[in-house]
Amino acid sequence: MNKFMKLAIDEAISGMTLNDGGPFGAVIVKNGEIISFAHNEVVKTNDPTAHAEVTALRKASSKLGRFDLSDCEIYSSCEPCPMCFAAIHWAKIKKLYYGSTREDAANINFDDKYIYDVIKGTASELQVDVIQIHRLESLEPFRLWKIKIDKTEY
Amino acid sequence: MNKFMKLAIDEAISGMTLNDGGPFGAVIVKNGEIISFAHNEVVKTNDPTAHAEVTALRKASSKLGRFDLSDCEIYSSCEPCPMCFAAIHWAKIKKLYYGSTREDAANINFDDKYIYDVIKGTASELQVDVIQIHRLESLEPFRLWKIKIDKTEY
Repeated sequence: MNKFMKLAIDEAISGMTLNDGGPFGAVIVKNGEIISFAHNEVVKTNDPTAHAEVTALRKASSKLGRFDLSDCEIYSSCEPCPMCFAAIHWAKIKKLYYGSTREDAANINFDDKYIYDVIKGTASELQVDVIQIHRLESLEPFRLWKIKIDKTEY
Repeated sequence: MNKFMKLAIDEAISGMTLNDGGPFGAVIVKNGEIISFAHNEVVKTNDPTAHAEVTALRKASSKLGRFDLSDCEIYSSCEPCPMCFAAIHWAKIKKLYYGSTREDAANINFDDKYIYDVIKGTASELQVDVIQIHRLESLEPFRLWKIKIDKTEY
């Protein structure tokens, strides 16, 4: 089988065996070379964002010294949740390989599919009450950004 | 105006002024008390996941020593992107206040709305090529998780 996906699955198993978090692993590859690999560390680190993909992205960015990973690919043992899927976009990665699905994750009680459904507007119940306030005042940083000369865009 | 939203906006402005990243800020509040505040640090840290909300969530989790922030609320100067919106769900936060919108962010060239459109299936072009492989092998960590006795669910 694909050696990068095999590593992602091995990471998923070792992470859960260590009680670091849920059974998920990810690997980041550049030109056929492994740049980083990680497993879910939510429980170990008390960080709700420490999913396998986010952790692998952070490690790769740190190693390469840049937030633009457009020359990298990511392998994930499971379809990334919306947090990780969006993080992959922000990192400008162009290719994502995944194994099991959001429905498979739902079958072991992880909320990936539910959060997708919330975003798509198809969830029957909403966990988060979302309230917009002070839009006018909140546009001030954007006005300043527009006229800022020395900004780094990403 | 709401003092927590004012702080989120002030953070957004100070972060972009310091060239730490884009013009976004967030504050996490528990029982009317500020637990953490942060601005976007993508450029400063070379971490594509270091958005204001994710950074504020990490700080709050670290400070409180738990990944469950269900007793907290979050204030964000802009509507969170899908990464941050999902991160808020994983942290089990129940109330989100935001100022400017994903369309406002798109107007200053941030991809929040584009990534929402990808997830909703309404984007006209896809930045990431998504390929499923080895689902059967990828189900093995989930099989082991199901029968694991000493797991911490979240």
